[in-house]
Amino acid sequence: MLFRARHLQRNVRAYATALDSGLRPQVLTPIPGPKGKAISADIGSFQDPRHHVLVCDYLKSKGNYLVDVDGNTFLDVYAQIASIPVGYNHPQLLELVKSDLYATLAMSRPSLAVFPPEEWKGMCEDAFLSVAPPGLDQVFTAMCGSCANETAFKAAFMSYPARQAGVKASELEFTQEELASCMKNQAPGSPELSILSFTSAFHGRLFGALSATRSKAIHKIGIPAFEWPVVPWPEIKYPMSAYAAENKEAEARALQQVEETIKEWKTKRPVAAIIIEPIASEGGDHHASPDFFRGLREITLKHKVAFIVDEVQTGVGATGTFWAHEKWNLETPPDFMTFSKKMQAAGFYHRLETRAPQAYRNFNTWMGDPIRTLQAAEQVKIIKAGDLVSHTGSIGDDLYAGLETLAEQSDKMSGLRGKGQGTFIAWDMPSPSVRNSFLSTMRSRGVNIGGCGEAAVRLRPMLIFGERQKEELLGHVEEVIKGV
Amino acid sequence: MLFRARHLQRNVRAYATALDSGLRPQVLTPIPGPKGKAISADIGSFQDPRHHVLVCDYLKSKGNYLVDVDGNTFLDVYAQIASIPVGYNHPQLLELVKSDLYATLAMSRPSLAVFPPEEWKGMCEDAFLSVAPPGLDQVFTAMCGSCANETAFKAAFMSYPARQAGVKASELEFTQEELASCMKNQAPGSPELSILSFTSAFHGRLFGALSATRSKAIHKIGIPAFEWPVVPWPEIKYPMSAYAAENKEAEARALQQVEETIKEWKTKRPVAAIIIEPIASEGGDHHASPDFFRGLREITLKHKVAFIVDEVQTGVGATGTFWAHEKWNLETPPDFMTFSKKMQAAGFYHRLETRAPQAYRNFNTWMGDPIRTLQAAEQVKIIKAGDLVSHTGSIGDDLYAGLETLAEQSDKMSGLRGKGQGTFIAWDMPSPSVRNSFLSTMRSRGVNIGGCGEAAVRLRPMLIFGERQKEELLGHVEEVIKGV
Repeated sequence: MLFRARHLQRNVRAYATALDSGLRPQVLTPIPGPKGKAISADIGSFQDPRHHVLVCDYLKSKGNYLVDVDGNTFLDVYAQIASIPVGYNHPQLLELVKSDLYATLAMSRPSLAVFPPEEWKGMCEDAFLSVAPPGLDQVFTAMCGSCANETAFKAAFMSYPARQAGVKASELEFTQEELASCMKNQAPGSPELSILSFTSAFHGRLFGALSATRSKAIHKIGIPAFEWPVVPWPEIKYPMSAYAAENKEAEARALQQVEETIKEWKTKRPVAAIIIEPIASEGGDHHASPDFFRGLREITLKHKVAFIVDEVQTGVGATGTFWAHEKWNLETPPDFMTFSKKMQAAGFYHRLETRAPQAYRNFNTWMGDPIRTLQAAEQVKIIKAGDLVSHTGSIGDDLYAGLETLAEQSDKMSGLRGKGQGTFIAWDMPSPSVRNSFLSTMRSRGVNIGGCGEAAVRLRPMLIFGERQKEELLGHVEEVIKGV
Repeated sequence: MLFRARHLQRNVRAYATALDSGLRPQVLTPIPGPKGKAISADIGSFQDPRHHVLVCDYLKSKGNYLVDVDGNTFLDVYAQIASIPVGYNHPQLLELVKSDLYATLAMSRPSLAVFPPEEWKGMCEDAFLSVAPPGLDQVFTAMCGSCANETAFKAAFMSYPARQAGVKASELEFTQEELASCMKNQAPGSPELSILSFTSAFHGRLFGALSATRSKAIHKIGIPAFEWPVVPWPEIKYPMSAYAAENKEAEARALQQVEETIKEWKTKRPVAAIIIEPIASEGGDHHASPDFFRGLREITLKHKVAFIVDEVQTGVGATGTFWAHEKWNLETPPDFMTFSKKMQAAGFYHRLETRAPQAYRNFNTWMGDPIRTLQAAEQVKIIKAGDLVSHTGSIGDDLYAGLETLAEQSDKMSGLRGKGQGTFIAWDMPSPSVRNSFLSTMRSRGVNIGGCGEAAVRLRPMLIFGERQKEELLGHVEEVIKGV
């Protein structure tokens, strides 16, 4: 077993090295460079350019390395906001595009729920069912992370009356009052139900998703929102192992607040579902223990509230298990688990009992994208063949150890977190401005790296992040951290 | 000019015939056939199969013709719910997939607003700016029709305070109260603003979009909705030319209700925007005159309310102009025009003044899909080269004339509508059951055709629908209409 693991490890490293061949961090111009600046300004004539960080040459980018239009090469541990799983221009994926099926489904896009292609079942088996989280055997396909969460919300709302009544959804019929009032957006047809989420949560930016998002004011301000409850994320101290007792108390308090909130809102706007990320990512990489999540699951069962796990950012191997919530060892699986980003296809897993009770209730023209499903299927094959999930777990352990040493030597790094969570690692810096200066200095040395929360740095490398990349990253962090 | 039009017309017809070569309606099995039924049941093990109409063989489908897994061939005038512009397996589109840029952007998907590709500006020029509606020179890219409408809603809400105050958005600053309250989903940070829409409107199915959708109860029931106003679509009689005076009165009444509603909601939940489809499609193909839409635009200007035109279904040539609202000859363009479906890429057009006042307010990970943008660009080239928009206008006129003759001979067809609107044609049947029986009988003869509203038939052929397809369609309608 050990031999096998080492052997695979070597293969993965050899593979990663081959894929990156010839590329390493190299910066030739100020960042952004003159060509990038000019193109960014051009784009600015018709689209908001204020978010641009780099204008890239994707044809030249490869594996872990992103190349910009000024010829600079970056080790990319941000990976398009955590959404590239196996590296830029993976040869096996480029090959997929050349297949007749890919070309046809790309250019003759089916309405998947009405005129599905002959190949749909096999595609979904390879892409989704072969990596389904324990206990969930149904998959609803959507276009993006926000859509995945919102269609899961819809499924949670639709199944709420039956769940509360303890009957099958098909046993319930609509009243005339419900049918009429929903056309006016009024109760009882448009029920005043809610989704409970946590402070610092990020679940997307469309109207339902944004009502559950609690990350930053700039994401929410000026946009109408549903009156939905929010409960503080437990106040966890890091490293978690050093504060086990305090964290346990903090988690108990948070669980109590969840239960109180459910009770309190019962007569106001009943909670139909709780949504939570295994690690609150955009909001600052906040963690909690498996016990906390198991406790949450118990509360949802007790109060017949649906439990939605949002794995849009944590999913697909980055934490050392294919889905982060597998580490919780839940006795009862979640009702819904949503995915997007690194999967490249989006949607949610669930069970048959939460399929919409009537047709055309959770439905739309495209119901996802068949070519992103083909891509997900191929990515899953690559991940399995390369044993990239356990590789990420193991390289993540090494990376964490290296960062731990650096954190001990620097007063600029605190709250290091993500131990045992693969490469899904973050730490805090003294202030937003120090953090931002750290990120831009890293970029000026050829490491593309992202922030989250107020003053945190988050690592989101790809699953092919290997030994050499780890050394490069640690080397630059060590040098830059001294100067900020 | 006439010579040129005829010459192009011949070319288009020759092209359409070549593309369809060898295919015509042919049904070998009951519909759905045994193989289709079996595959549908298989899919049913993990996904809702109740909406399935046909399981298709997309590799064999070509041009106007959809082939199913049982070897049946259908003239397709439904076109994946109005979302295929230039036919199945168009050779020029299949060729596009083989390009290095397509493969790379497919398999190394950028976060378009943060790390745009070098080619982004050219792609957007070809796909979007080259067909921008008059007066709108900015484009926000998104993933689907619902997302397009919701991100336009967000832009309308964000620009509302400045529009009402008559100042530049950049001149307004957030108060501490706004910043704090939005984190609790409360006013003033989460303002109690609304979107006004019309009865029978369909604007999508995510939470914001669904709150503006008023098509059918089954689309809305059980899902929480925003308290937003709805105004009746004017009660138009068809053919519109025969009821000009009555329709004018109906439109005047509707406009008055719009204005009253805006005033009434001013102290309740102010209307930040009005959204309307040029033809209310899913809701039953309801039309109104250009005067009505011009009147609506005047009211929105008077009350400083944003005007959103939803061209998700009407856009991209089907009505004989690239965008349906071009026929209104507005003095002041709409504030937002949304698109998706046949464009294959989604988003909205707008002007610089409605760009989000601050960065990261209308933003997400992907901001659309670069390969759907490449596809849109190629489709636009095909449409322009084939003069397919004016072709659709002219073949639509012929089709309408043929249907008019059939309607005169049958008491089963009433309310024929869509004259001068290309192939975007619909009519009513005596009841939902007669309509449904008509659709399935047409399908059993090899014509795939869709319904809308309660008892309407809608035609949504592709832009390559030609003379032969028109004859096939009219022939089958004539025979089937006798029997239902």
